[in-house]
Amino acid sequence: MKIAIIQLNPLIGNFKRQFERIVKACERAKIQGCDLAVCPELALCGYPPRDLLDRKDFVDANRSCLEKLMHAVQGIGVVCGLVDTNPDETGNFLFNSAVLFENGRILHQVNKQLLPTYDVFDERRHFEPGRPSRPLAYKGLRLGLTICEDAWNDKDIFKRRRYALDPVTQLIGDGIDFLINISASPFHQGKRAFRDGMLAGLARKHKMTLVFVNQVGGNDHILFDGASAVFNARGEVVAQCRDFDEDEIVFDTASGMGDVHAVSQGDTQSVLQALIMGTRDYVTKCGYHQAVVGLSGGVDSALTIYIAVQALGSENVAAVFMPSRHTSRDNHEDTRLLAQNLGVAYNVIPIDSIYNDFVRLLLPAANPSEVSLTEQNIQARARGTLLMGISNRDGCLVLSTGNKSELAVGYCTLYGDMNGGLAVISDVYKTQVYEIGRLINSAGEVIPRRILEKAPSAELKPNQTDQDDLPPYEVVDGILKGYIEEGLSPDELIAGGRDRRSVEDVLSRVDKSEYKRQQAPPGLKVTSKAFGEGRRYPVAKRFRPV
Amino acid sequence: MKIAIIQLNPLIGNFKRQFERIVKACERAKIQGCDLAVCPELALCGYPPRDLLDRKDFVDANRSCLEKLMHAVQGIGVVCGLVDTNPDETGNFLFNSAVLFENGRILHQVNKQLLPTYDVFDERRHFEPGRPSRPLAYKGLRLGLTICEDAWNDKDIFKRRRYALDPVTQLIGDGIDFLINISASPFHQGKRAFRDGMLAGLARKHKMTLVFVNQVGGNDHILFDGASAVFNARGEVVAQCRDFDEDEIVFDTASGMGDVHAVSQGDTQSVLQALIMGTRDYVTKCGYHQAVVGLSGGVDSALTIYIAVQALGSENVAAVFMPSRHTSRDNHEDTRLLAQNLGVAYNVIPIDSIYNDFVRLLLPAANPSEVSLTEQNIQARARGTLLMGISNRDGCLVLSTGNKSELAVGYCTLYGDMNGGLAVISDVYKTQVYEIGRLINSAGEVIPRRILEKAPSAELKPNQTDQDDLPPYEVVDGILKGYIEEGLSPDELIAGGRDRRSVEDVLSRVDKSEYKRQQAPPGLKVTSKAFGEGRRYPVAKRFRPV
Repeated sequence: MKIAIIQLNPLIGNFKRQFERIVKACERAKIQGCDLAVCPELALCGYPPRDLLDRKDFVDANRSCLEKLMHAVQGIGVVCGLVDTNPDETGNFLFNSAVLFENGRILHQVNKQLLPTYDVFDERRHFEPGRPSRPLAYKGLRLGLTICEDAWNDKDIFKRRRYALDPVTQLIGDGIDFLINISASPFHQGKRAFRDGMLAGLARKHKMTLVFVNQVGGNDHILFDGASAVFNARGEVVAQCRDFDEDEIVFDTASGMGDVHAVSQGDTQSVLQALIMGTRDYVTKCGYHQAVVGLSGGVDSALTIYIAVQALGSENVAAVFMPSRHTSRDNHEDTRLLAQNLGVAYNVIPIDSIYNDFVRLLLPAANPSEVSLTEQNIQARARGTLLMGISNRDGCLVLSTGNKSELAVGYCTLYGDMNGGLAVISDVYKTQVYEIGRLINSAGEVIPRRILEKAPSAELKPNQTDQDDLPPYEVVDGILKGYIEEGLSPDELIAGGRDRRSVEDVLSRVDKSEYKRQQAPPGLKVTSKAFGEGRRYPVAKRFRPV
Repeated sequence: MKIAIIQLNPLIGNFKRQFERIVKACERAKIQGCDLAVCPELALCGYPPRDLLDRKDFVDANRSCLEKLMHAVQGIGVVCGLVDTNPDETGNFLFNSAVLFENGRILHQVNKQLLPTYDVFDERRHFEPGRPSRPLAYKGLRLGLTICEDAWNDKDIFKRRRYALDPVTQLIGDGIDFLINISASPFHQGKRAFRDGMLAGLARKHKMTLVFVNQVGGNDHILFDGASAVFNARGEVVAQCRDFDEDEIVFDTASGMGDVHAVSQGDTQSVLQALIMGTRDYVTKCGYHQAVVGLSGGVDSALTIYIAVQALGSENVAAVFMPSRHTSRDNHEDTRLLAQNLGVAYNVIPIDSIYNDFVRLLLPAANPSEVSLTEQNIQARARGTLLMGISNRDGCLVLSTGNKSELAVGYCTLYGDMNGGLAVISDVYKTQVYEIGRLINSAGEVIPRRILEKAPSAELKPNQTDQDDLPPYEVVDGILKGYIEEGLSPDELIAGGRDRRSVEDVLSRVDKSEYKRQQAPPGLKVTSKAFGEGRRYPVAKRFRPV
């Protein structure tokens, strides 16, 4: 059996777009002699639809889209994910479903059994777990069809299992010829290696070909890397879609061979590609095509504008430099050179007159030789207001430039440098920002070298550097990763060799800055635990981490 | 048996505070001769702890707090909610538990079976459902102990039930002498009447006394009204705690009688009390005691500052009036009079010089006789930056003043008038803002009458009123309630008699403004469906409501 894998980038709720793309992909699959085309989880509405699922018209639109699709695609079987209603009298109203249809008829339907409800996932909020599915007979073969999380509960892989059921083992026991898993499996660093290892392990253990079909693209903060693949019974990758882009490949069960497209290698490269895709998708799926970035002369804004240019094209990106009396001459030169290297428009708007006005009104007795926190924040907010003015004036989206280390410890100004429609690198630690910068420059200097070498500074008062207040970023980032991603307690961090004073300092800053993060723009998730939807903390609380 | 109901206002994660309050309340209960003291759901850590539950040190602190409490309270049985670990090999790590302890020993433990995972609730994210509980024998009586949602699945009350199990009916079948339900049941308009009706109905139907013990207080956006009560076997309220405040009452099963404290009456009064409590708790639980409100001369800021004064005292609230060239003389007078009536400090900061600076830098060729959207937003952002400057300078929290109608249709400026730590009335429709304003004035004019009578205006350009752009608020609010709270589709709204053009206009504004709401401050929830955590919508989407 020849199987086409359709790695789709959906726009949430745009049924027409998804319909047209699936129809065209199925036509191409037919030309290639395929018997079956497989689309990702919830392919018709896109994943995650979130509380649009509470709307009956949205759910109905899924069903109408399927009917149209069943009509439009003839002469090939199609596996496709969609939302369906639960006919039972109790429980949630909806199923996360998949159908196999051919020539206008639904041959089989399965409903997702394991519903992830952790981190960014909210599936128990909307869906009822499906009953165990049976093998699907199609063209003389028996298919085991599972949906994403259904394949993530193997007792040999997970020390502690979230669910009592294991749908894969059940299907294997029922006797099948190959396994299909349709997914919307989000990207984070290290995830692909784990996922591929897990899927290869399942294939090997059950001596069974496994066809993994993933969604691709960015939907708000969640990035899907694609990289759909087929694993043979020895666990080898025998077909592979590229990552971070739509793709289609064909796999033949008879020969056990398929198309193998290249994927990006290594975390630094993958994160950069993920951020470019996520920025492009967020900006364009929100209906924009232009962006503006405020440049400071530091590495964060340099990386952000580089990503913007890769995502949208240099003609669609504008740089704005907003110097104050505290801005160094180096930063004037470095930002101008960066903009020139990237081929983007470069605008300079000095903020001193606005700043002076605010200070005169708020702090008439201020001592000009000491710059209070109030005055520092005024500078950031003057810049934030200018960027939003440009956004309003020119119809472009503001991309904010803060990194994860800053957002964690609150080294950022709410309604100031945090302003923007998208926080491009807000899940990238400062140390990794440098790594990505060096990778970008490895093929020739794009980011002026001095930007990668100078000491980080907010330049909100004379001779300020980040390390006046904070431990070195290597230390900060090590503590943050342990605390946020690995869930270590302060005691465990200290027992692991971290300095007690740094741990206490960093974690109490994380704790106190929760209110800022609650109002932060969506940020592209590239780690296993990002701030935002996947980390839900109270603001008013009194549980001291130290 | 004499039962003390301890209606507690916890601060999330402040185990010491909760411990001390429970110990003192139990001492008072013993003096009154009580055999049993009952605390709310998750009383030790407070509800909802959210992702603090992912932290082992937080979960451990629950257990240590219980141990200390079991030691500290002697000579009375205590029912108390807390987080416990799930010893099973699969499933979520935690239970939402309740224990009955006496003299240092746990006599019984039950785990919550029905885990709400909708609207603001995320319990399947953290908890595993408990197995059916058995009656608890205590001092010769058999108690049926349930936790909140466990009592919310009666087939005679809910047309469609979320869960297959009904823990109450099971316990009744096992034979009990009375039912206890410990809860953290959030407030919204109409909820108390529904909840009391439901609980009374259960008591009547099963001919069984029902003791309902609720949490009280605000935790971020969620408000708990308290109003704990005992319903006798005829469904009559025979004991009642007050609402919106901590309270303790005693109920005697032998006499069937208990203390009955007064509760607020009617939606308008309840909403006002809820907002005052929520504002006080948010500000103080975040560690502040002072607040600042920007007054415009309109009804929204007038209501907000009235609430702030009731919550924090007039000595802890400052008013700031920030006029521009578009500000009317009436608003100068009205804000001054309002501040005088409330006894709060009144500051005036004109924004024209700042505004002129921004316009000169951003729009050098602007025509002063036409005020573009960019220029309107600059005014709002200049004011927002001034308020934040005052917050930084004086250490007070900014309370933002936008109402639900504005937030719904995007009639507000991100990083401008949306600035603040708490959006006090962001779940109150404009029409209800007026109703509450009239209620406040019913005992004597506090809000100058002209504020309640003038046409709503943002005063961002000459002769502007809200109704230049929007249908009348009666129309807007009717459409919004149908769409947001009742979940009606555009077609259903039109079929229900709403004007098609208004429906299309209003709903497309709601759709387009999602990005603003994603960055809004927490807002106090007083309707069945508030923006924020309880309504999770994608920003990048293309499902048009019309």
